[in-house]
Formats: sequence, structure tokens, C-alpha cells
Amino acid sequence: MSIKSKIRTIKNYPIEGVMFRDITTLLNDPSGFKEVIDDFYNRYKDLKIDKIVAVEARGFIIGAPLAYLLNIGLVIIRKPGKLPSKTIFEEYDLEYGTDKIEIHIDSIKKGERVLIVDDLIATGGTVAAAVRLVEKMEAEIIECCFVIDLPDIGGRERLQNMGQKVFTLCEFEGE
Amino acid sequence: MSIKSKIRTIKNYPIEGVMFRDITTLLNDPSGFKEVIDDFYNRYKDLKIDKIVAVEARGFIIGAPLAYLLNIGLVIIRKPGKLPSKTIFEEYDLEYGTDKIEIHIDSIKKGERVLIVDDLIATGGTVAAAVRLVEKMEAEIIECCFVIDLPDIGGRERLQNMGQKVFTLCEFEGE
Repeated sequence: MSIKSKIRTIKNYPIEGVMFRDITTLLNDPSGFKEVIDDFYNRYKDLKIDKIVAVEARGFIIGAPLAYLLNIGLVIIRKPGKLPSKTIFEEYDLEYGTDKIEIHIDSIKKGERVLIVDDLIATGGTVAAAVRLVEKMEAEIIECCFVIDLPDIGGRERLQNMGQKVFTLCEFEGE
Repeated sequence: MSIKSKIRTIKNYPIEGVMFRDITTLLNDPSGFKEVIDDFYNRYKDLKIDKIVAVEARGFIIGAPLAYLLNIGLVIIRKPGKLPSKTIFEEYDLEYGTDKIEIHIDSIKKGERVLIVDDLIATGGTVAAAVRLVEKMEAEIIECCFVIDLPDIGGRERLQNMGQKVFTLCEFEGE
């Protein structure tokens, strides 16, 4: 079975008309979860990555095993007020209003080679903010990777327009 | 260097008088993070665990690599409104008021052997609620494990009074 077939679709969640792609069924399947992590590991194991940057909260689920296997540090990007030391932040747009994400300023060194990880790319707003945070720290972003791409929503193109490489394991079209 | 020495203490965070134990420095250290995951893996590899239950959000960082290495399913416990399929919930007390956590009802089968994972045990309120959720699903909790114990705050004793076994990798006394 493919990774895609192990992802559950919930219709009309969180609002009417949305097809929510639910990775919890994939995580709950040992061979499916292993395939996800191994696919990423095999892609990145020879690229001399220095740090995994994982976006709260589902990004932690993919980023942590990958950092372990690559034997490199894990850096977490969180919602405001969750990181206790000195941070920098970036805002991103929501449907109504804006939100922020933060990173510890001492978590990445200038020139380090960074992989940005999340479970899914939709509009790409959060990850675009993560890219700006890592760029502020003068690190080099090797790629942004996701389990799921929703190509109709345009997040991949948005990141590519920022000069980023994007890698995904499967895609769902037609929201 | 020990795991404990790689955990940073931030004084007076989030409020005056609290010594916040910050695992981000441990996560950012490849050998420290590897030691944490390997210690848990070695403890649990022969115990025929069926599922890792990880508590949002930092619990994901420990639970996900452990589920990968043990080659078993990962089940996530989340704040309300984050899980898209049918859930059950439990409330727990905060300093003022209460909060809830949820789990998907189809994520654990009756009789499965479960390990509950989080980064830190303080009052144990959240994990006690996680224990009640797993008990409602008639699964068997083998142990609750944490990187950090704050023994002065009494969470370990609280879980033990519920009949749970508790395992931690290091402790910080004197809040």
C-alpha cells in the first residue's frame, strides 16, 4: 500500500466544503510511518544537512525521527509564547487576521545547512514565515519537505517563487 | 555529558519564581537527543508495546522517533479541535479553570499494550487525563515515560496513585 492510501480524508472538516487530509491513520500504521521517514532519510542522508527545522506541531512528528536518523540537531518553530529563551518572530496571514511563529535565536548558526519539515503544504503561509526566519539567521535552506502537497492551493509555487526547493511524498488534488 | 547537563534552565519563565527546564538545547544537540531516544528504545524494545501515545506538542518529539524505532503505531493526543475524526476527551485542571485533551476513538484497540510519552512531568495533570483516555479505550498502559521529572511538584506520585508505572531520565529539584 502507498503512503497516500494510508491517509484518511475527512469531508467538510474543519468547515463545509473542505476535504481534510488526516495523517493520524498513516502515523498509526507502522509500515506507513516507517516508509515516510525512510523516504526522507534516503533523500537527505548524503546532503550534509546540519539542522532539521520542524514547524509546530505535526512537523515535530516528521522532523524528530529524521533528526535522530541523520544524527543532527532538531530546531523547533513554535507559536508565540512557547519558546522560553530569546526569539525572533515572523507573521503570516490567516483567512482573517494574522498569526506569528517564533524560533530561538541561538538555535541555528550562520551558514548552517537547514532542512525545513512539516506534514502538509497548503497555502504555504506558515512555511514561508519559517523560511524568512531561517533566512534572517543567515542559514542556507537546502529544501522544504512535506508528506502531503495540495497543489491546487498553490503553496509549492509560493515557496518556489521565494527561491526554495520543495519536495513532497504525495499529493491530493481537488479540494 | 549527561542528558541533564544539556537541558537549559530559564529563570522566572513563564512567570516570576519558576525555573523553566528548556529541552530545546537538548534537542539541538545530536548526541544528547540520540541518547534520550536510545535510552527509551532500549528500555522498551522487548516489552511488546503495541502503540506509542504521545501528548501534544513536545511529547511528539520524543514519541515519534520511539515509534519509528520500535516499528509500532504512533497515536497523538491533542488539544480540542485539532483531531478531525471522532474523538473522546478528558478534562484536566489548570491553575485557573480547566482544559481538555482528545484522542481519536479508533486509534487504540481494546487490550493493546500502550506506552504514554511526554517530555516532562510536573503536576501530572495532562498525563493523568491521557491515562484516563487510554483506560476508557480498555488498553493496557505499560508505563508513562518522560525525559524530565520535577519531583517537588508531585506528578510521579499522582500517576503512581492511579496505579501507573513512571520512568524518567533525569530530575530537577527545587523550583
